[in-house]
Amino acid sequence: MLHEETRTVAESRTTMSELVFPNHTNVLGNLMGGQLMYWMDTVSAICAQKHTHRACVTLSVDHISFRYPIRLGNLVNLEARVTRAFSTSMEIFIDVIAENMTTGERFQSNSAFFTFVALDQNGRPTQVPKLLVKTPEEKELFDDAWTRREHRLKISGDAKK
Amino acid sequence: MLHEETRTVAESRTTMSELVFPNHTNVLGNLMGGQLMYWMDTVSAICAQKHTHRACVTLSVDHISFRYPIRLGNLVNLEARVTRAFSTSMEIFIDVIAENMTTGERFQSNSAFFTFVALDQNGRPTQVPKLLVKTPEEKELFDDAWTRREHRLKISGDAKK
Amino acid sequence: MLHEETRTVAESRTTMSELVFPNHTNVLGNLMGGQLMYWMDTVSAICAQKHTHRACVTLSVDHISFRYPIRLGNLVNLEARVTRAFSTSMEIFIDVIAENMTTGERFQSNSAFFTFVALDQNGRPTQVPKLLVKTPEEKELFDDAWTRREHRLKISGDAKK
Amino acid sequence: MLHEETRTVAESRTTMSELVFPNHTNVLGNLMGGQLMYWMDTVSAICAQKHTHRACVTLSVDHISFRYPIRLGNLVNLEARVTRAFSTSMEIFIDVIAENMTTGERFQSNSAFFTFVALDQNGRPTQVPKLLVKTPEEKELFDDAWTRREHRLKISGDAKK
Amino acid sequence: MLHEETRTVAESRTTMSELVFPNHTNVLGNLMGGQLMYWMDTVSAICAQKHTHRACVTLSVDHISFRYPIRLGNLVNLEARVTRAFSTSMEIFIDVIAENMTTGERFQSNSAFFTFVALDQNGRPTQVPKLLVKTPEEKELFDDAWTRREHRLKISGDAKK
Amino acid sequence: MLHEETRTVAESRTTMSELVFPNHTNVLGNLMGGQLMYWMDTVSAICAQKHTHRACVTLSVDHISFRYPIRLGNLVNLEARVTRAFSTSMEIFIDVIAENMTTGERFQSNSAFFTFVALDQNGRPTQVPKLLVKTPEEKELFDDAWTRREHRLKISGDAKK
Repeated sequence: MLHEETRTVAESRTTMSELVFPNHTNVLGNLMGGQLMYWMDTVSAICAQKHTHRACVTLSVDHISFRYPIRLGNLVNLEARVTRAFSTSMEIFIDVIAENMTTGERFQSNSAFFTFVALDQNGRPTQVPKLLVKTPEEKELFDDAWTRREHRLKISGDAKK
Repeated sequence: MLHEETRTVAESRTTMSELVFPNHTNVLGNLMGGQLMYWMDTVSAICAQKHTHRACVTLSVDHISFRYPIRLGNLVNLEARVTRAFSTSMEIFIDVIAENMTTGERFQSNSAFFTFVALDQNGRPTQVPKLLVKTPEEKELFDDAWTRREHRLKISGDAKK
Repeated sequence: MLHEETRTVAESRTTMSELVFPNHTNVLGNLMGGQLMYWMDTVSAICAQKHTHRACVTLSVDHISFRYPIRLGNLVNLEARVTRAFSTSMEIFIDVIAENMTTGERFQSNSAFFTFVALDQNGRPTQVPKLLVKTPEEKELFDDAWTRREHRLKISGDAKK
Repeated sequence: MLHEETRTVAESRTTMSELVFPNHTNVLGNLMGGQLMYWMDTVSAICAQKHTHRACVTLSVDHISFRYPIRLGNLVNLEARVTRAFSTSMEIFIDVIAENMTTGERFQSNSAFFTFVALDQNGRPTQVPKLLVKTPEEKELFDDAWTRREHRLKISGDAKK
Repeated sequence: MLHEETRTVAESRTTMSELVFPNHTNVLGNLMGGQLMYWMDTVSAICAQKHTHRACVTLSVDHISFRYPIRLGNLVNLEARVTRAFSTSMEIFIDVIAENMTTGERFQSNSAFFTFVALDQNGRPTQVPKLLVKTPEEKELFDDAWTRREHRLKISGDAKK
Repeated sequence: MLHEETRTVAESRTTMSELVFPNHTNVLGNLMGGQLMYWMDTVSAICAQKHTHRACVTLSVDHISFRYPIRLGNLVNLEARVTRAFSTSMEIFIDVIAENMTTGERFQSNSAFFTFVALDQNGRPTQVPKLLVKTPEEKELFDDAWTRREHRLKISGDAKK
């Protein structure tokens, strides 16, 4: 892969929709957090793979708050976008919008930043394409990514990645 | 529930073991982060239910770093313990130990703090029993929980819980 | 629901992405047709629910040809759009694009028309909102829907719906 | 495989029974069409494999009408039979009978024709054994298969298979 | 339900076919015993429900030997038959035949006796229809059922059922 | 593996906790026996692998009685311990404790003995480490294992293992 290879945010943007079934909920009919995190990881792993054309593994998950309960029968819309590419890793923003299928009402359930590392065929970290940001929103997420990364490295006590 | 009700850490301590199957892994045979978070949420939700005898839902997940890859065929041992009970919520510590079934070698994959809120029959937050800490390790996790909680509330911009 | 209620194609357009895992494939690593039809039905059922805000059930599936094999590890992108609303039923077009995650190469796997009926709380067929078509492509799919419907009724020998 | 190899309908006839569980149904408790198509594909893929002793993949699905709703707790009985073998493909008839487990009442839910192609170890289409038909019903399905095939090829615009 | 109600063995005889997928096997590609027991219980629970038109729960499982390994990609054919009805319970015989889909070779994997109890709407044991045996084989299984039942009650130390 | 290798009971003791979800139960909300046997096999297979560091397959299951129904929402706690190692196989005791998450009430659901055989890389039975028993309870289970084994071999008519 050439060092100068770049990809836009739009090229790897990934959306996913999931219906909440009985086995996804607790006895009160609320979607379990673990199921939602499973979907968040899936959509962002696909996004990371699209950006890199490589197998990617989750490196870290930033703080997540589950503000509003998602209910049995709701539709969960997930969207993942690369916000910044580093040397062998990238930061991905996931936005989760829940939708009441009877009323059509939509509300933001939560959002999060995940980081992924790209691996070559031997499972070793490998270069990822640079990210080309275009819109002001993309630019802002890109600029702030460095601060989030420094905070992350401080927390995990691991400045190697 | 009486305000003065208390439970020990040992009473709700929960362990779980899961084998890594093909559908849990990516093309390189690494356990996907989303599957591991699903299991971490399950074991800590059970732990929260044991402490409260109530339905509990995930309120937040602190930063998680996935240091070492877990592989197809590995055994994943998860342990969850309540570290501190607040008014209607509690903090839970989850420790994840992976095990190579061929060599018997074990290594710490990662750990995390989740918070849960207890709900009554109408789905409203309800009082949780106080936590009785006994060992020095339990005491230390209990004392530091307040600082982690303040940090969490600052991040989520939500001091209401 | 007022008879004059209308919704655009864009309001219910639904996309879904699925990764092909080992349990989705046969011994040669090809995605099984039944798994793909399961996903096609799911994405179009969500689309039908978004258009009607009602529970919807599959009424019929038109002829489907599986032209190109989808492989283990491929990403399957599904898109569903309402093409025409009838009295209590609607026709939905599903387009399936497969994507090789290593090369980024994309190819159309297949497409199909499904019909769904909207049900009220008692499980009886109920009125669906009219469809507002805007683009020439939407207009063409809308116009041809009547011919497809007549063919369908002739095949199924059931002109009651 | 010798060109003159033949097998009877009875040799590959396959039956399957599935109970309808909560995760198979929509909010009104009706079996989702996609789940039923998944089972129809599974039973017919097994039937195709039995007839050919080869890996087989779905080539096409003819029009399916879902006449009567199948309910949570119902038993779904599926039966698949080869109706005619062509050069490298075969047509399979699937009959779906639902059964109310409380009353013992049975009703035909729907039926369909699927076609499958047999693949050799390299994933290329390979010869399938001829079908030996014995009963008048088998003979009739066999004779009409040619007309269905011509219709299918006309629809899919693909006369190569 | 009238006391004199009877049903034949054929009326509730149930067959089921399952393909062995990667998630059903251990690292050597052998079907796990627990998955096979899950299928054996499912087919016999359906058989018990067909005989009684009641919800039925597993009461006991007799000794099972797993003689021959079943492999990834094999087809598992299960057949369940009622062998004798007692007051509120019945004995069911399950026969498991595995099939190599490439060679067509079939071999008996194992067999077992399960007992089920029929429950009324309140979850209490309720009368089951008598069994009408017709063939010599059915007669022999029926006659020997009493001895197996006595042995079972002795082992479980529970003569109440 | 050296003949004199030994392992204690504690080294391979395995616990597992599972919540009962809608898809695990019948229409009355009772956990199906087949799901419980699946979990019993999983926990004991892990235990066998820990003792041997080998792939292990289920050889036999002794009589199981399901005394008390386990309900939707209950927690199922399973514990597996090796009771005796033979030449290439071992006996494992599984204890199942169900727990009502609302009341905290716990009750023994059932228990069972499973036997497993250890396999080398070529799938052939291989030596297993001897078991070192320490407590009186471990000693008693060890001593009685020989009688259970003889009974098992008599039933299965297979004295070769």
